[in-house]
Amino acid sequence: MVESRLTGPVRVVGVGLLGTSIALGLRARGVDVILSDASPTNVSIAVDYGAGRGATDGDEPQLVVVCVPPDVTASVIVRELSAYPRAVVTDVASVKKPILDAVIAAGGDVTRYVGSHPLAGREKGGPMSGRADLFLGRPWVVAGHAGISYQTAAAVDDLILDLGATLVEMTAEEHDSSVALVSHAPQVISTLMARRLAGAPDAAVNLAGQGLRDVTRIAASDPALWVQILGANATPTAEVLRGVRDDLDEVIQALDASSFGSTSPSAEALPSSTWRRTMVEMLAGGNTGVARIPGKHGQDRRYASIVVMVDDTPGELARLLTEMGEIGVNLEDLRLEHSPGAQIGLAEIAVLPEAVERLTAALADRGWRIAG
Amino acid sequence: MVESRLTGPVRVVGVGLLGTSIALGLRARGVDVILSDASPTNVSIAVDYGAGRGATDGDEPQLVVVCVPPDVTASVIVRELSAYPRAVVTDVASVKKPILDAVIAAGGDVTRYVGSHPLAGREKGGPMSGRADLFLGRPWVVAGHAGISYQTAAAVDDLILDLGATLVEMTAEEHDSSVALVSHAPQVISTLMARRLAGAPDAAVNLAGQGLRDVTRIAASDPALWVQILGANATPTAEVLRGVRDDLDEVIQALDASSFGSTSPSAEALPSSTWRRTMVEMLAGGNTGVARIPGKHGQDRRYASIVVMVDDTPGELARLLTEMGEIGVNLEDLRLEHSPGAQIGLAEIAVLPEAVERLTAALADRGWRIAG
Repeated sequence: MVESRLTGPVRVVGVGLLGTSIALGLRARGVDVILSDASPTNVSIAVDYGAGRGATDGDEPQLVVVCVPPDVTASVIVRELSAYPRAVVTDVASVKKPILDAVIAAGGDVTRYVGSHPLAGREKGGPMSGRADLFLGRPWVVAGHAGISYQTAAAVDDLILDLGATLVEMTAEEHDSSVALVSHAPQVISTLMARRLAGAPDAAVNLAGQGLRDVTRIAASDPALWVQILGANATPTAEVLRGVRDDLDEVIQALDASSFGSTSPSAEALPSSTWRRTMVEMLAGGNTGVARIPGKHGQDRRYASIVVMVDDTPGELARLLTEMGEIGVNLEDLRLEHSPGAQIGLAEIAVLPEAVERLTAALADRGWRIAG
Repeated sequence: MVESRLTGPVRVVGVGLLGTSIALGLRARGVDVILSDASPTNVSIAVDYGAGRGATDGDEPQLVVVCVPPDVTASVIVRELSAYPRAVVTDVASVKKPILDAVIAAGGDVTRYVGSHPLAGREKGGPMSGRADLFLGRPWVVAGHAGISYQTAAAVDDLILDLGATLVEMTAEEHDSSVALVSHAPQVISTLMARRLAGAPDAAVNLAGQGLRDVTRIAASDPALWVQILGANATPTAEVLRGVRDDLDEVIQALDASSFGSTSPSAEALPSSTWRRTMVEMLAGGNTGVARIPGKHGQDRRYASIVVMVDDTPGELARLLTEMGEIGVNLEDLRLEHSPGAQIGLAEIAVLPEAVERLTAALADRGWRIAG
């Protein structure tokens, strides 16, 4: 067991997905984890799950991690600061400035509070969805402020490093505008696109492809949670959405002005070259934006991909990957694509560009059908 | 070799991704495929690639498939109808009504023309991206009209069935409004969200997670192609986008009205319960919409998933899948998730719900770490 950087017990308040995952990760390092939740049933589930123990009167946590819904986070922080006057307190809510302001306004001792936010999650919630590795390699923001000393805040850094996450420091304001951009506005955009499907004819929805699936995947998120998140980060999120709305107005105007397919050109019609220029600028801007997203997915140019046809029978994909190992090429990423009803699947394999030619030839030699 | 349903040669005009893929699929069934393209180089590449042969003076195609960009599709259809007076002509452009109208307006013989549209594609274009199985199990719309007989149109049905696609019949208008909803509007929405990232600070973009990646993936599409598609289907696309824009205005108004986090409430502030109700309705509407999308991805409830931790070394994933085969559980879908820099990956495995418990136990017995 790798030893924890923390020196005392950690109290986790709220044993949903994040709280349970933090607890499981700390338990794996031998930390004494104290679990608390408004629901005694949830505490029992999390204890049975191996996430820690129930609270007792004599607890002296070194660190309290508040993992409750955003609308009650500030009041729970204030309560914990007062209940454990020697503990450092952090929280994991996805908005930071309003919570810090509310803790200050309520007279909480912010010399011992620093907010944080792990950029990690799953579509499933609840203690049973918790997993010790949820934060591995994910960014975890610490939203520092002038009221807490570097030395005191170090306990939160230790927590983050214990869980294998990547520590990112920014101010609460920077954090909130960043997550508005990369998380909260995308949630709204995905939701609103998906909402168009609600009343659409079956025949139309049945034409859906991977593009629509990807754009709308996160629209399946929990409304009760998201109304809190969006309410708590309303101003920065609305600012991003205003940018989208203004662009959308321009696109709609350009589409109205385009002559091909329009029988009644709009009164305020743009000249043909103008609408086309607007559309190309928008589309190219999208190219530029998506290219900035780091990571293996999305617009990653570090890898090249080949597509191999795989029979839809057990063991076929395993055989493919085993043979790739024999050929000596490392798999960087893999995406499986089945068509409903088809007896064949497509495995899109990402590898280093220099390996493509050799891998393609070697797989073809072994009888694999390369589809692209 | 499975024999083709077609009885004569097929002429493919335009050997980009779709044309080459159609040609490869037909060649695999022994069809005499004649290739034509504005670029002689592209024809040479496609011939070398095994997609067919060049055109000759005596060609008598049974069927001509026009696979050129949308803005020249109608004029190429008219030209082909006149050059091959005994051939049935179809096209694969992603918009159908304006093309039919333009063919009629130009005096094309629509007793031999019926438009079609395969809902298939890849991010990569060009003849070298073509693959024979591109259409396998994918919907392929035939946009019938009163001017062509059932018997004549049958050649297009044969083409679609030969290529393993699923034939879907709808009118040109139904097609155009359907693809506006499931393809063209989502492209714009993804583009506009991605465009917000273009000027954002690195620190913000570095917090991106899978949600943003999914929402913006198709924003990487080719602007030159998409300006044509959107221009050709401007009216139905603008109609869907107006729906999104109106919802977006409501969301922005609701965010402005939410009190938490807003220091200067908007003049037209909604009461607290009203903004919350608006947001919940929007989010729940998104849930409803995304649940309607069929297929293995997205909101598919037919499968359950378990997450297994896999070392980022060659062969580990192959070993996992081999052992799943030994355990006797069929893999329905697989998603790999690497965090940049992490030495471990997560394999999210979709299986039938009744297999989850048995698989989880058997994998744990074999030493696999189950993360959820």
